[in-house]
Amino acid sequence: MTPERKANLQRLFNPKHIAVIGGTDAEAVAVESQRMGYRGQLWPVNPKRKTLGGHECFPSAEDLPEAPDAVFLAIPREPAIETVDRLRQMGAGGIVCYTAGFKEVGEQGAGAEDALMNACGEMALVGPNCYGILNYLDRVALWPFAHGGNCPGFGAAIITQSGMLASDFTMSQRSLPLAFIISAGNQALLSIEDYILHLCEREEIRSIGVHVEGIRDWYAFEEASVKAMDHDIPIVVLKSGSSSIGSELTLTHTGSISGADHIYSALFERLGIIRVDNASEFLETLKYLSVSRLPKGNRVAGLTCSGGEAAMLADMGEKEGLDFKQPGETTKETLASLLPHTATASNPLDYTTPIWGIPEKTVPVFKCLIKDGYDMAIIVQDYPTEELDESRASYVNDSRAFVAAVKAAGIPGAVCSVIPENLDSDIRKELIAEGIAPMQGIHDCINAVSKAIWHAERRKKIKQSEFPRLYRFTKSSNCITILNELEGKQMLSNSGVPIPPYSSVKGLEIKQLPNQLSFPLVAKMISRDLSHKT
Amino acid sequence: MTPERKANLQRLFNPKHIAVIGGTDAEAVAVESQRMGYRGQLWPVNPKRKTLGGHECFPSAEDLPEAPDAVFLAIPREPAIETVDRLRQMGAGGIVCYTAGFKEVGEQGAGAEDALMNACGEMALVGPNCYGILNYLDRVALWPFAHGGNCPGFGAAIITQSGMLASDFTMSQRSLPLAFIISAGNQALLSIEDYILHLCEREEIRSIGVHVEGIRDWYAFEEASVKAMDHDIPIVVLKSGSSSIGSELTLTHTGSISGADHIYSALFERLGIIRVDNASEFLETLKYLSVSRLPKGNRVAGLTCSGGEAAMLADMGEKEGLDFKQPGETTKETLASLLPHTATASNPLDYTTPIWGIPEKTVPVFKCLIKDGYDMAIIVQDYPTEELDESRASYVNDSRAFVAAVKAAGIPGAVCSVIPENLDSDIRKELIAEGIAPMQGIHDCINAVSKAIWHAERRKKIKQSEFPRLYRFTKSSNCITILNELEGKQMLSNSGVPIPPYSSVKGLEIKQLPNQLSFPLVAKMISRDLSHKT
Repeated sequence: MTPERKANLQRLFNPKHIAVIGGTDAEAVAVESQRMGYRGQLWPVNPKRKTLGGHECFPSAEDLPEAPDAVFLAIPREPAIETVDRLRQMGAGGIVCYTAGFKEVGEQGAGAEDALMNACGEMALVGPNCYGILNYLDRVALWPFAHGGNCPGFGAAIITQSGMLASDFTMSQRSLPLAFIISAGNQALLSIEDYILHLCEREEIRSIGVHVEGIRDWYAFEEASVKAMDHDIPIVVLKSGSSSIGSELTLTHTGSISGADHIYSALFERLGIIRVDNASEFLETLKYLSVSRLPKGNRVAGLTCSGGEAAMLADMGEKEGLDFKQPGETTKETLASLLPHTATASNPLDYTTPIWGIPEKTVPVFKCLIKDGYDMAIIVQDYPTEELDESRASYVNDSRAFVAAVKAAGIPGAVCSVIPENLDSDIRKELIAEGIAPMQGIHDCINAVSKAIWHAERRKKIKQSEFPRLYRFTKSSNCITILNELEGKQMLSNSGVPIPPYSSVKGLEIKQLPNQLSFPLVAKMISRDLSHKT
Repeated sequence: MTPERKANLQRLFNPKHIAVIGGTDAEAVAVESQRMGYRGQLWPVNPKRKTLGGHECFPSAEDLPEAPDAVFLAIPREPAIETVDRLRQMGAGGIVCYTAGFKEVGEQGAGAEDALMNACGEMALVGPNCYGILNYLDRVALWPFAHGGNCPGFGAAIITQSGMLASDFTMSQRSLPLAFIISAGNQALLSIEDYILHLCEREEIRSIGVHVEGIRDWYAFEEASVKAMDHDIPIVVLKSGSSSIGSELTLTHTGSISGADHIYSALFERLGIIRVDNASEFLETLKYLSVSRLPKGNRVAGLTCSGGEAAMLADMGEKEGLDFKQPGETTKETLASLLPHTATASNPLDYTTPIWGIPEKTVPVFKCLIKDGYDMAIIVQDYPTEELDESRASYVNDSRAFVAAVKAAGIPGAVCSVIPENLDSDIRKELIAEGIAPMQGIHDCINAVSKAIWHAERRKKIKQSEFPRLYRFTKSSNCITILNELEGKQMLSNSGVPIPPYSSVKGLEIKQLPNQLSFPLVAKMISRDLSHKT
């Protein structure tokens, strides 16, 4: 990225003034900016309306008091391209192009996308065909919809190719600390990799979540991942488009090539990138990484107030490679003296209901187990619903006893509920302030912890050695193209890979079997539009 | 079960009168009964208190107006056994024995458990060491804690070995229609299998969920499963104790033998029992089975209003064996004429935001796709949070358009959110009333649908042929015991299974290698208490 565009990206993401250009959608951005607590100037541009979201309208971009740092563009395609051209001439910083109808609609849109990029020059441009950005750190909402999300001054940054999914994420009830949300759209100019590189420079960002349908530039992705690793920011990837249908849909949706799922997996593993399978796992893993520290090893102390939950914790932990190592003999003896006689000193420890909610009893028990050489600790608690909160104080007491024990031992910790929603927002907030991850769902908790441990190991290994970079093709282009069957075979053959005899024929020539071929044989269709068809 | 005990179980589960015996815990049952809307008589027994939960106390069980149908017993162990003896003599129906300290605490408790069972005679007894039962159908709460849960007149029955987990389930925010919750505790007298047999006779019960740490009597379990299959009630199992630590904890917790996980899996598969991996999956699968019908095949129509969600649906569906078959040519053409020009006619179908929330546009689109030979349909929708509900009406419109289309096609359907909590309780309730499952989390939805399809196929196969029963040992006892290494080898050898040469030695005899053995060799410890130790 040129220094000029980099500076423009900076202006776009943390603008002193925002111009919203359009009608209803632009108005929504004005409203959302206000709700977000945006502290800069907001200038609506609309020739037909007097005010928009309580702000006086300017008839055109040229009438603005000065070149805006950020522009939210929500007008039809052709005028949008013209407006971008004028904004560049004015010296605007960057644009969120909400307008759609570009590359994602096929050939006729692709030309328009080229025109848009030309008009853009060295400005920054998010999209087109995107929802925009939510910068929770600086209270910037270049976003045309109502959104949820909260930020305690630090958190996760989420970049996604799906605006709708970004919106879903903001509506989740997970208390995930959010720093940034970026809906990348078609990535005509700024790519996911550019965003990662930019976000790495913000120290408030503790983790980066990427929902990706396909990666277009693997070298750029590698570059961005290496920088994130340098800054100790783990990346979590949720990749769609792995199925055959999903892959086709992705091509339609954002023009990305997905598929080749195992290649993605191999890439992610090499780069220390955590891969998750669904949206809950994505959010919970980002939460763990944003709130708690990485465990130094896989020895985990588990606490529950029920035998059933202890068994569940042990099962899921073993499956994910966590070591619920048994406490040492001395610890066992001490535990036995501190626990009710019906309890068994083990790990995970069912500390049993007779001491439930009694800090004088639980704190010594929790401390005794947790200090016995573990790398992290988990307590399982399902809070009652708000209208049934008679016993809430006892739950809070146990959460706090756990926080005290974990802090005394100096290891990371997580409070987790069996059922995701059984951990209310008040206790989640309190725990986050203490640096203890409030995890929703044992399975997602165990999974996040296991992946955090894996990432820590991978990070250590990568930092100890020179990082093995991807093999670079000599071809100057570093963008991925699909070769047809024939081109692919020829390339492999040229590199010395043995391939079966073949012949390329057109139309009715097929009736006459080429000389060098005999049965059994396979017929394949060859076309730019077919990656593979037998 | 004897006819007498069967009648007593009936009295216990749907009692005309309940005696609660004890202090604070008994009081809680009185309060919960009232909150549940219990319509029978409630008689507290407590010699030291005048009233309990607003009811006048009886000084002892003998002073009750008549033999109670149901008793909730929450007094210390020894008096509990005596009281059970007296209740039997009085002709009481059954007992929920909340009192703990029996088999789960080891040897000294085992004797007490035998005494309890002797005292019980032909009464019904739930527990000991359990929370009790919640019968939502008849408004009976023999339950000593606040609980959530709702019942629209039908639903799932959940049986669990963990009282705490049962409590967690009632607190979930899933709108799972609940018919029954049974915390089985030690299963001294009534077992999980007895409960299944009993519950099968209630036509309001649409599915049975079993959280089990270990099955003690596999023949009884088979019997119960066959009956459930006869009544078209699918069973869903969440099994803990599969890990080595979890297995040991389970032994401590309820005295069950767990482990041998693949044997359980094989058993469940044979019996058409759906196995799930975690609590969310458990609840969502039960919800699907309780609200929607079983699909007749695996062809699924998918609808989303976002390309990202369509790809996600396709990916997860392919992974779980769902067939998002493409619409036929005619359907494609009709869809193309009904959809905005930027949309692509495919399955899953991203119907795109221009028609979002507009029933005149969506109903024909949804109907056109769904009637094209699918076995079931799913729409993905993430509702905004309540405080940000400006666009809620559009979401509701699309839900209703989907309901109309699914009903017109006469196939089962599900509305599902990407993120579990993004489907609010109002719309869940509305959908349940329409017989459409409101599923929380795409991954759990796809999983539930896939398992429902599997169960339907398995049911068909099982019903077409004579059911293959488990091999029965000639030994009269049908309870499972752990043989030691030597006994096991001898038994296998007697049945003609070749085993390696071995010799059994004691203590220092090991110094002298027995004649018939030579290196390489393996030493194994043999003891009743060791199932396996090399």
